[in-house]
Amino acid sequence: MRLVRYNVVASLDGYLAGPNGEYDWIPEDPTVDFEALFAAVDTVLFGRKSYEAMLAGPSPLSPGMRGYVFSGTLRPEDCPGVTVVSDDAGAFVAGLRAEPGEGEIWLFGGGALFGSLLAAGQVDRIEVTVAPILLGGGIPLYPPGARAPLRLLDTHRYPSGMVTLRYAAGEDGSAGNVKREA
Amino acid sequence: MRLVRYNVVASLDGYLAGPNGEYDWIPEDPTVDFEALFAAVDTVLFGRKSYEAMLAGPSPLSPGMRGYVFSGTLRPEDCPGVTVVSDDAGAFVAGLRAEPGEGEIWLFGGGALFGSLLAAGQVDRIEVTVAPILLGGGIPLYPPGARAPLRLLDTHRYPSGMVTLRYAAGEDGSAGNVKREA
Repeated sequence: MRLVRYNVVASLDGYLAGPNGEYDWIPEDPTVDFEALFAAVDTVLFGRKSYEAMLAGPSPLSPGMRGYVFSGTLRPEDCPGVTVVSDDAGAFVAGLRAEPGEGEIWLFGGGALFGSLLAAGQVDRIEVTVAPILLGGGIPLYPPGARAPLRLLDTHRYPSGMVTLRYAAGEDGSAGNVKREA
Repeated sequence: MRLVRYNVVASLDGYLAGPNGEYDWIPEDPTVDFEALFAAVDTVLFGRKSYEAMLAGPSPLSPGMRGYVFSGTLRPEDCPGVTVVSDDAGAFVAGLRAEPGEGEIWLFGGGALFGSLLAAGQVDRIEVTVAPILLGGGIPLYPPGARAPLRLLDTHRYPSGMVTLRYAAGEDGSAGNVKREA
């Protein structure tokens, strides 16, 4: 099964963006290895809000990558270069993961899509890069919902003061691929 | 000036406790060095809710430590062993910090007291031990409020999957002692 990775930057108090969608608090750090991420990933998943916010900045979609936006309201003709999915996100992503190949799937955001995919058992890795700031409000990295235990895999500290905490979903890291293969 | 340390355990999504004040999600980890904390600290600060929650568990107050509860409603006669403070928390803590000695001040919680003391420039260190769980709701480690930049000092990974992220308050770490001494 192809790996689904929720890879995001968050504030220490757990927000992906400020109250008005601000990203200006994320420090620039030339040591962040975007190339490794882009080399591993061939598919990117967006919630509606994250897709709309993404349009304002540089696209995470490099040539050859597929992008999917989960939305019941966006019109395909308004979203060039990506596929709009109005079906159930969990079932759709289960289908993507079962496709042949090694390409990984980047869950770009936001928190609402993450919450529904995690509840559906369709997220393998939670990779949160914690920026050195308290935002005091904004878009939560995980929306109100059920408890979800994680298993820490590793950490990485950046010169800018960001720290990546990388987890597998599930107490034993088995909420993703392993459990369903058993 | 004596150091004020906001030393707490939080979930990855930024909660100090669950929606009903639950702490049962914090893993037991025999490698956590409580002795070093207790050796450095001689004063403990509580918000009202944290004080009431603390009464249900083991006390962080060891013999010789002073405890202060910030509350406009608690009655001193109901709080044996600690001093109830109904004055402005920022001004009171400024006074505590100016006392002679090397003993550090542990801001035990909760988030509301932290928010007001941070805004008043009375917090030096933010030491958050991130437990490997998403809670999906509860008592936030930082309540709705202003942005606060931090400076990463160091990190520590525990066998239980917890990770401590230790910061100085302020972009240059100067929101605490240094700025006011200048």
